[in-house]
Amino acid sequence: MNLGEPQLQEAIAKRKAIWTDFADIRYLRFSDQCRDVLRGTVVVDDRVIHGYPRIGRILALGRGLSEQFSAPFWAEEKVDGYNVRICRIGGRTIAITRGGYICPFTTDRIVDFIDSSVFDKDPDLVICAEVAGPDNPYVESCPQFIDSDIELFVFDLMYLDRSGFIPHADKYRCIESYELPAVRCLGRFTTADLGKIRETLRRFNEEGREGLVFKEDTPERRCTKYVTSNSSIADIRSTAENILELPPEYFTSRILRLALFLREQGLEHSAGLDRQLGAAFLDGLLAAIAQYEQDGKAHHRFRCRFRQRDSALALLAHLSDVARHKARITRRDLRQDGEHWVLEYDRTYPSLNTLLGNLLKGGQMYD
Amino acid sequence: MNLGEPQLQEAIAKRKAIWTDFADIRYLRFSDQCRDVLRGTVVVDDRVIHGYPRIGRILALGRGLSEQFSAPFWAEEKVDGYNVRICRIGGRTIAITRGGYICPFTTDRIVDFIDSSVFDKDPDLVICAEVAGPDNPYVESCPQFIDSDIELFVFDLMYLDRSGFIPHADKYRCIESYELPAVRCLGRFTTADLGKIRETLRRFNEEGREGLVFKEDTPERRCTKYVTSNSSIADIRSTAENILELPPEYFTSRILRLALFLREQGLEHSAGLDRQLGAAFLDGLLAAIAQYEQDGKAHHRFRCRFRQRDSALALLAHLSDVARHKARITRRDLRQDGEHWVLEYDRTYPSLNTLLGNLLKGGQMYD
Repeated sequence: MNLGEPQLQEAIAKRKAIWTDFADIRYLRFSDQCRDVLRGTVVVDDRVIHGYPRIGRILALGRGLSEQFSAPFWAEEKVDGYNVRICRIGGRTIAITRGGYICPFTTDRIVDFIDSSVFDKDPDLVICAEVAGPDNPYVESCPQFIDSDIELFVFDLMYLDRSGFIPHADKYRCIESYELPAVRCLGRFTTADLGKIRETLRRFNEEGREGLVFKEDTPERRCTKYVTSNSSIADIRSTAENILELPPEYFTSRILRLALFLREQGLEHSAGLDRQLGAAFLDGLLAAIAQYEQDGKAHHRFRCRFRQRDSALALLAHLSDVARHKARITRRDLRQDGEHWVLEYDRTYPSLNTLLGNLLKGGQMYD
Repeated sequence: MNLGEPQLQEAIAKRKAIWTDFADIRYLRFSDQCRDVLRGTVVVDDRVIHGYPRIGRILALGRGLSEQFSAPFWAEEKVDGYNVRICRIGGRTIAITRGGYICPFTTDRIVDFIDSSVFDKDPDLVICAEVAGPDNPYVESCPQFIDSDIELFVFDLMYLDRSGFIPHADKYRCIESYELPAVRCLGRFTTADLGKIRETLRRFNEEGREGLVFKEDTPERRCTKYVTSNSSIADIRSTAENILELPPEYFTSRILRLALFLREQGLEHSAGLDRQLGAAFLDGLLAAIAQYEQDGKAHHRFRCRFRQRDSALALLAHLSDVARHKARITRRDLRQDGEHWVLEYDRTYPSLNTLLGNLLKGGQMYD
């Protein structure tokens, strides 16, 4: 373990590290950064899985790349899902979310995507991956190129008890030799390749892909990301049910991203794009209102499939625990389907329902 | 005066009433409500001009009207401008803004709209009106039916030292006999007239009008308002420069209004409406970015015309004082044009310019 007992005790005392349970595993979860220990860091069985660092976002591609990087960099596809770190601890393979929870869903499904023999060969390996797809329990949007269930895309490798990443060349070698499903790597570029990168993003935008993550090919490994206008619209489109929970900058930052993407690509905002943006705001909200009028509440229906029935129950308990007063989780169905269990549940945001209830009854707002 | 000295002293002690100067007039301005004295109330020369009360907004027309009213009500056109109260104090006619400032601009222009003999006949009269038009100093949006300069629309009458309004029948009589320019009154309705009211709003929406204010024809005079989808889009369209200053609910509440207007009118959101909404978000922001790149800053150019040159200078001083750190006011031009002085000035929001500067230089955002 590369964290000392005093560091852990300090984080616990400050309530930045919290003892958490998953099945029979008791682990320490950093719910916030504490000194140089990142949020999402987990300590379990005296091993440390370091948090995945935040990646800044540039909104002007050309100036951003030359401002952020002073060496060649790799460009990898950014996939719209949730971030996990996968490792083997005490003989068991677990998946940890960005926030440092062992995820009952992802942990259950790892074997569908990663051959566990990887951890026989390389026991201290930590696989950093995005999980995306329509049947995931966290994210309401998903890539257009995934039709059903989920897929897993590896984008980084670390080791237990170490906070850095495996260098890029080694990473790509490992991904190949372990046959890991990986995000698409577009290649190694310099800022002189701006035209090529811009062209890739234009194509990504047309294909409904989210964007690129850029990783400097140096030991410091500076990173930055850049998203397509399609991604900004997809984010807005998926906000209907939790629209009242969003921070003030949610819309402004996405509209700014969108405007700067158009400018970068030398595009006018076409009538088609305007229409997409307007529909992104209205489609979901009108559906939520119709749902409220029909069922007495607006909610988002989630579906995901598990190998073990118990994992589905553990996910429900986990989601209810994390949502607290902000959302209500209601199980709708849990049925066997071939070798999987299919769970359906609703996530309901009381704030939207309370407001709609008041307004549709004829109540007033003051603003 | 119907406010006691102890009430005034309490409000002053709590910093809810503030001594303010306009030319040689010293007045007490209620910057916040204090007990039952409304925000915007002004005390000058021992006379009280009571604040104009806030009017709640219904988002569901039919249910809203029957929930809010238990008697017939008047429907008046809601005009997209700023609210003033006009009265004569110490021989001088002044116009007071919603927030309780004597407005140098409106005060200067009153004579263009209201015959001062009104106050000879009725010295304690307080005229409540909306001032709207492209050449106004406060509001970035304006009604489509006003091509240039400003117009003034009376919608209520009060008396000095009294907090209630003149009853509707008397109000309409006074408006007629004093030849005051008034908002359009659509008539007296009951909740059984919902179809007619809905039809008026559909027409208003097509004509680019803002909406209706409903005023119960009872001594309690409950009021409520309802706006068209056109109004919500116009609000969004006019936010480009101060997009970062907006409270979190700014967009959500307008999109909710828009969605509920469509539902009320039994309209699907057409491709045309989606396009309008998308363009409302993007047009202004793209123009602001282009302006930043060309001039080094994004700002909104205001223009308004005065009878007196000094009034223009007083407005600039007033705006700078009120804007404080949130916006910068820069005079651009002040020239004579016939019998008026035309002032042009820019309102610049440093927050947007700082953010654009950082992003266009290639800086990162974390979210």
